Amino acid sequence: MKARPLKNYLLAPGPTAVPAEVLLQIASPTIHHRTPEFEKIVSGVREQLKEVFATTQDVIVLAASGTGGMEAAVTNTLSPGEVVLCVNAGKFGERWLNICRTFGLEVEELRVEWGRPVEAGAVESALRRRPEIRAVLVQASETSTAVLHPIEAISRLTRAHDTLLLVDGITAVGVTEMPMDRWGIDVLVSGSQKAFMLPPGLAFIALSERAWRASESAKLPRFYFDLRRERDNLHKNTTAYTPAINLMYGLSCALGMMLEEGLPAIFARCDRLMRATRAGAQAIGLELVAKESPSPAVTGVFTPPGLDGGAIQKYLRYALGVEVAGGQDQFKGKILRLAHLGFTGDFDVITVLAALELALSRFGAEIAFGRGVGQAQTILAEALPPAAPQG
Amino acid sequence: MKARPLKNYLLAPGPTAVPAEVLLQIASPTIHHRTPEFEKIVSGVREQLKEVFATTQDVIVLAASGTGGMEAAVTNTLSPGEVVLCVNAGKFGERWLNICRTFGLEVEELRVEWGRPVEAGAVESALRRRPEIRAVLVQASETSTAVLHPIEAISRLTRAHDTLLLVDGITAVGVTEMPMDRWGIDVLVSGSQKAFMLPPGLAFIALSERAWRASESAKLPRFYFDLRRERDNLHKNTTAYTPAINLMYGLSCALGMMLEEGLPAIFARCDRLMRATRAGAQAIGLELVAKESPSPAVTGVFTPPGLDGGAIQKYLRYALGVEVAGGQDQFKGKILRLAHLGFTGDFDVITVLAALELALSRFGAEIAFGRGVGQAQTILAEALPPAAPQG
Repeated sequence: MKARPLKNYLLAPGPTAVPAEVLLQIASPTIHHRTPEFEKIVSGVREQLKEVFATTQDVIVLAASGTGGMEAAVTNTLSPGEVVLCVNAGKFGERWLNICRTFGLEVEELRVEWGRPVEAGAVESALRRRPEIRAVLVQASETSTAVLHPIEAISRLTRAHDTLLLVDGITAVGVTEMPMDRWGIDVLVSGSQKAFMLPPGLAFIALSERAWRASESAKLPRFYFDLRRERDNLHKNTTAYTPAINLMYGLSCALGMMLEEGLPAIFARCDRLMRATRAGAQAIGLELVAKESPSPAVTGVFTPPGLDGGAIQKYLRYALGVEVAGGQDQFKGKILRLAHLGFTGDFDVITVLAALELALSRFGAEIAFGRGVGQAQTILAEALPPAAPQG
Repeated sequence: MKARPLKNYLLAPGPTAVPAEVLLQIASPTIHHRTPEFEKIVSGVREQLKEVFATTQDVIVLAASGTGGMEAAVTNTLSPGEVVLCVNAGKFGERWLNICRTFGLEVEELRVEWGRPVEAGAVESALRRRPEIRAVLVQASETSTAVLHPIEAISRLTRAHDTLLLVDGITAVGVTEMPMDRWGIDVLVSGSQKAFMLPPGLAFIALSERAWRASESAKLPRFYFDLRRERDNLHKNTTAYTPAINLMYGLSCALGMMLEEGLPAIFARCDRLMRATRAGAQAIGLELVAKESPSPAVTGVFTPPGLDGGAIQKYLRYALGVEVAGGQDQFKGKILRLAHLGFTGDFDVITVLAALELALSRFGAEIAFGRGVGQAQTILAEALPPAAPQG
């Protein structure tokens, strides 16, 4: 395989492409973090993050990947031996389980077939069967299967019980509506390399009043991820430990871009790109992974029978410069995941579909060039403004 | 019209898109230019530019736009009252005329219908009719009409006479073969914002032995653009006046990228993108401006009769985030120019064709979504490597 083309497209569900404006901010000289200049950045970011999380609570920024945020969610709200309900519908659901077991929690596992959303009714049954369940842990968007779980419906159940709702919103916050306060989510986690249009390295986490109260009695050990210490520092516009200073420049810039576009416009964009990607993939003849409740962050498609998904993924990368994600575990070699969150637009969908058509035809599939692209255009056209009147 | 989309595509024939790596280099701290550090940059760039110009001569870098380079070509080789033959086949041919007249040269104008290349035979007739013609001035690629002129054929004529050949290679150098020494081009000019993947601000100019000799007796006035002074400084790895320091960082980076890709690969890429763009545009039903000898830098298409090209161009910009060029002078409002030079790849062609399909449909044209894109894919597929064997 020859070297990559000159121009490359990062269309995986994280890391995602970073706008040049943000990269340039990150390239600004590193300043010291115990200065009024840096405190001003923290103070600005603090207010902007509340808007994105739709909460009046503090949103803590951690120098960590999203998994660090997930661990912080667990260790700051729970105590050894407590019972938790983990929704396991994919690779990231499994991660909740692994974290909880590592810290000595008793895990009630709610297994869901990969590619399907959890049913709120199943959560309800589990809560009724074991009222001692202290927390429900679930992904908002399960990135490994490209499925959206029904967080609003689940939150109605957890609010009715004395049960915390810990949500991995890593590919959901800034992608689709996830109003923390209104829905009563107790812990909401996200990460920089998704909707936030940044390189990896930052995790975001917000706790409800109820979760902050739980943190007072939570006995699981945490030091670096002690959120009470971070909150106390945040109130002084600083951080407990050395922050990822240059990423914070980028965060400030990217949050400005997000709020300028507006959250409703972002949600509409991700939804439109999802619908266009799905329509295009189906027109190419590909089977969708998520038959219902698809994630507006990423679309999963099964590769045609007899073709190795991993080989197609590599071909897209090296021959066409298009980086998409493959499948994990039971989906390894069987699916491709095409992202449409963060810094993506209409022509990323066009690019990824045209690239798929080209690659699949090279792998011997019967492909009518332009058919998938054309179907996607039909969806994208719906959102276009009318032409100016002709003079 | 609403604000621009989040993601924008600069697909005009200059300025062109700049890779993030190059932008980041340009964002490096400004150093002083009278230092060993900066001299090292000049020294490296000096050798790299010779490769790109395919010459053993010095290539002078000027802090100027391409037009400054064109003026330098004229004032460094000619004297007041001398007769020059200017090929006027578009907006940039006209610019040669204006420069020559401003400096008191007697201009023999060779008018060519817009959209057509000059015929070498017409140049030959003019040279035979007026043997006192001291120089032939021509574009390699006439950007306003997207046409390539037959420089190699013209160079055979000028070498046979005592006539200099001054070539505006602004959208040709680094786009298509333009071997200065082998063809015997006497002055070759280019600019940073084209194949060189840089922001505007630098002009490049190289003189043949014959042109350097001419510069000894050339009497036209020049101070800032005095190339002999620049050459003497270049031999000491510096510049006569303050160079555009940060753009030079970018130039060093971009030349590295160009030579890593390799000139033959770049020429093949631009040619492929041109053929794909033309095939796609024709499949959409658009008439091509250049019926023959099209430029691999840019494709001109007539907008459908009755539709205002300017309005379509604005729609592409504001509704779809795709920046293409419109027409100038007699082509104003009648054509669109779609670039495929510099930092462009297969999916830029796909993007611009999909965007055209979307825009034209919004303006009421009968468009089958995906047809133009599909035709382009057929061309692009030809260059793709085979799929890896399936296990």
